[in-house]
Amino acid sequence: MKFLRNTWYVAAISTEVDPAALFHRKILDTSVLIYRKADGTPVAMHDRCPHRFAPLHLGTRVGDEVACVYHGLRFDCAGQCTLNPHGGGATPANARVRTFPLLERYGFIWIWMGDAPADPARLPDFGPLDEGHPNAYGATYMHLKSNYELIIDNVMDLSHIDYVHGEIITTRGQLSPLTPKLTETASTVTSRSEWTQQPALMIFAPFLPDPKASARHFFEITWTAPANIQLSVGAVQDDRRTLDLDNTTGQYDLHTCTPETLDTTHYFFATRRNHLVEDAEYNLAKIKAMHVAFETEDGPVIEAVHAEMGTDDFFGLHPVLICNDTGPVKVRRMLRRMVDAEQQQAAATPAVGGRRQYAVAAPTTEQA
Amino acid sequence: MKFLRNTWYVAAISTEVDPAALFHRKILDTSVLIYRKADGTPVAMHDRCPHRFAPLHLGTRVGDEVACVYHGLRFDCAGQCTLNPHGGGATPANARVRTFPLLERYGFIWIWMGDAPADPARLPDFGPLDEGHPNAYGATYMHLKSNYELIIDNVMDLSHIDYVHGEIITTRGQLSPLTPKLTETASTVTSRSEWTQQPALMIFAPFLPDPKASARHFFEITWTAPANIQLSVGAVQDDRRTLDLDNTTGQYDLHTCTPETLDTTHYFFATRRNHLVEDAEYNLAKIKAMHVAFETEDGPVIEAVHAEMGTDDFFGLHPVLICNDTGPVKVRRMLRRMVDAEQQQAAATPAVGGRRQYAVAAPTTEQA
Amino acid sequence: MKFLRNTWYVAAISTEVDPAALFHRKILDTSVLIYRKADGTPVAMHDRCPHRFAPLHLGTRVGDEVACVYHGLRFDCAGQCTLNPHGGGATPANARVRTFPLLERYGFIWIWMGDAPADPARLPDFGPLDEGHPNAYGATYMHLKSNYELIIDNVMDLSHIDYVHGEIITTRGQLSPLTPKLTETASTVTSRSEWTQQPALMIFAPFLPDPKASARHFFEITWTAPANIQLSVGAVQDDRRTLDLDNTTGQYDLHTCTPETLDTTHYFFATRRNHLVEDAEYNLAKIKAMHVAFETEDGPVIEAVHAEMGTDDFFGLHPVLICNDTGPVKVRRMLRRMVDAEQQQAAATPAVGGRRQYAVAAPTTEQA
Repeated sequence: MKFLRNTWYVAAISTEVDPAALFHRKILDTSVLIYRKADGTPVAMHDRCPHRFAPLHLGTRVGDEVACVYHGLRFDCAGQCTLNPHGGGATPANARVRTFPLLERYGFIWIWMGDAPADPARLPDFGPLDEGHPNAYGATYMHLKSNYELIIDNVMDLSHIDYVHGEIITTRGQLSPLTPKLTETASTVTSRSEWTQQPALMIFAPFLPDPKASARHFFEITWTAPANIQLSVGAVQDDRRTLDLDNTTGQYDLHTCTPETLDTTHYFFATRRNHLVEDAEYNLAKIKAMHVAFETEDGPVIEAVHAEMGTDDFFGLHPVLICNDTGPVKVRRMLRRMVDAEQQQAAATPAVGGRRQYAVAAPTTEQA
Repeated sequence: MKFLRNTWYVAAISTEVDPAALFHRKILDTSVLIYRKADGTPVAMHDRCPHRFAPLHLGTRVGDEVACVYHGLRFDCAGQCTLNPHGGGATPANARVRTFPLLERYGFIWIWMGDAPADPARLPDFGPLDEGHPNAYGATYMHLKSNYELIIDNVMDLSHIDYVHGEIITTRGQLSPLTPKLTETASTVTSRSEWTQQPALMIFAPFLPDPKASARHFFEITWTAPANIQLSVGAVQDDRRTLDLDNTTGQYDLHTCTPETLDTTHYFFATRRNHLVEDAEYNLAKIKAMHVAFETEDGPVIEAVHAEMGTDDFFGLHPVLICNDTGPVKVRRMLRRMVDAEQQQAAATPAVGGRRQYAVAAPTTEQA
Repeated sequence: MKFLRNTWYVAAISTEVDPAALFHRKILDTSVLIYRKADGTPVAMHDRCPHRFAPLHLGTRVGDEVACVYHGLRFDCAGQCTLNPHGGGATPANARVRTFPLLERYGFIWIWMGDAPADPARLPDFGPLDEGHPNAYGATYMHLKSNYELIIDNVMDLSHIDYVHGEIITTRGQLSPLTPKLTETASTVTSRSEWTQQPALMIFAPFLPDPKASARHFFEITWTAPANIQLSVGAVQDDRRTLDLDNTTGQYDLHTCTPETLDTTHYFFATRRNHLVEDAEYNLAKIKAMHVAFETEDGPVIEAVHAEMGTDDFFGLHPVLICNDTGPVKVRRMLRRMVDAEQQQAAATPAVGGRRQYAVAAPTTEQA
């Protein structure tokens, strides 16, 4: 399946792009350079000099500009060539690098890879990640040899957790018998489960009044395009409390995927918990433990599935679907409709120089 | 060339599949899971959960069943889903895994990958491997980066042995001048050579009356589809004796190949000798020496040929054929006729769900 | 782009092929065996036995012949099978290996891969490499993961040197502002630059009257097909002297590329300097330093460009061209015209057994 392009993907964790970096990452099969201006604003551009195609990240920073490693051509943050040190020094009008609009929010740098104007309003609201003590927030990155939709599947359908994961997040068989409650909007799919288990999920039990006692739990998982899954999970032992993050010991997570290629994916994860919020040491240990779980438990299974499938045509392999697949299947179908619609729109839009020319203002870079 | 499918291939040496194993191997481009029931009977199935395509060998044994690592679906030896731990627990009627008929004979587990009913009678008789003292039998396995037909060629035409191998099996130039005598049936090709050398083949000389004296030798090599070559070889110093295994110091070998892909092959070898039959230490040393010879002498040459050819279209490269090629060329042509016939039959047979529906009883699993 | 075939490529540095070697190298996607006869004359042939396609370099030398590792067939320097040790020993008339004409000049073994008769007159004259003290000559070899045309570009346009290289060959910004003077013939492109810098190029400054003073310099760079670039460079502090190698402290270099595949290249370099010509230690240090500069400075940039391009269709990527590209672009276009002409000629020439039959004498091997 082609990629959805006119949408926001995470390009990097904010901290991956330090002030001095010429950070680079391949996104949707395109090499991207990201760096920060002196004022901290991140900028992104095609990581390819338009002269002789050297990767710009091999070059050097010159103030807010970047000089190509090969022949010293210099480009500003708008991708325009500002210096040609050769011959008369004329800078050809077409000596410019494609830039990509960025947004920096929720601890991530988000990128818009499409030709249509970047629309900040299209970035879903993950505000809770930004609200609270810094020591209650963590983010991490994994690289997986897998199509990104398999990772979406994995988070949209948590019925795997008692099988793939260990003691730390087992529901002790309580989750499997449930069929999640699904709700949809035009652009989202939400799956919600509630259950009781004893003891509680081990990530929460130590923070409950009686760590060994039974507790009510909930998952609420919402997919938004292209590959964001916001997952809230909590546990409570007071029966009068509502099952939401305001009333439980829990956490607000974001899983989000950025295709590197059809066969490899950048997998980003951010989490904010509502307990022990000032403990820096616990915070580090927690994000590290979650990273290890992804790398050693989810990752190998997802990569093995990808290798065994040998294609990204999931439905073409005629999967046997069971009740818990309803959520991820809705997501796959909604994403496919979005991609198809975008492809049809693109086919109807004039292209100049390889880029679709939409009848609207040019993309802008914005910092939140 | 496509693979012959309605035939028996070796899937594993019997000892590779221990009672606890979820053994897996790719055969004819298909991932296969093999394990033993509590009673020891081996079973084989597609190593792919029909739900979300996780390799089943990553899962766990539950009695004679296997539980998928990803979501815990459980499958019995017939490939039928017996447990869906999710939602209401209904097991979809189509939740079944394709199984493959097996036969366990001659120290190997044989598999039938085709859609036509498995026919145990189609397994050639290599009975002599089973008859005799256990310490006179050995088997080994090599993985080669080569098309399987190059390995068949290598064994069907032993004129290479004085060039590729060392002192241990040199014929001292006596084999090369001979043109093997070929005989054919509708489904076999046999090549026989007889010669005299002094001293005898070093693998036999120590067991002859006069290790330094001349001895008469024979090779008899019979190919049966798809990729079995039964090779008998012996030496004798009594001129009144017939050149066969009953009358010489010799061994009965089976070389057999199972394509992993068109470019990689599982190469199995079994041998039974008729001398020093109770000596366990000698037995181990002998099979180890043969393994090392394959790995360090035949293997590198065959892999280099494969890499240099860059295709499996041997005849398309217009080889210069000499007298000793008659045997392997007959085999290549007979195998091609069998594959063509099978393809034509398949094209004429209705397919349901990707499998040809032959008008006969379903395949059965049998243990010899 | 297809390769130019009826032309001379460097196959090896002369010293790479020692008297005992069965040297092999892939050239234009073809495996080539090179070895020296007892009289020292190098011979080249397809590194593939015509019988069963084993690489001949795995075999053994038998006098001036080579015996195949697999079945012992023996071939003479003309590629003719001289011994078939099997059966009656008849050598099939078609049992011959394609040979390739060679010339040994300028410290290199040159090979003619095309079907048209090899024409020694087509080898450009790099005579100055042969003239002078042996300790003033050096040659080296690099393997690059890059299309060969990117390496030609790199040498035809030296405006990169102040950016890619370090202190040792910086022009201190003096080269960039100049537009090289280009001259063309029907089969060559020459680029010449003259400039003044202080101090001189560090490779020459120590040999000038005043190492810290200003000096006039020149580059003269001539491409000849297919991938030879002869580069002369010198510096002088006497204003009355002409800017050529007779009148300056300088060196005469040859950069030449041989495609291994479209994506990998054998890069050869030879140099002769006109100063300190008897110093063996300096000579070794100098060629080693140049090798290291290629490997650590040019090489990584060129390979990164190749990887980023993902194609050999340079113009199809719509490069932004600046003044210094005129030289390499002329070379690319002239080479393309040559390849197109050769392809058209080939299409009009009858082919027998996969080789074009030109109405002229057969290729001959010659040693200079």
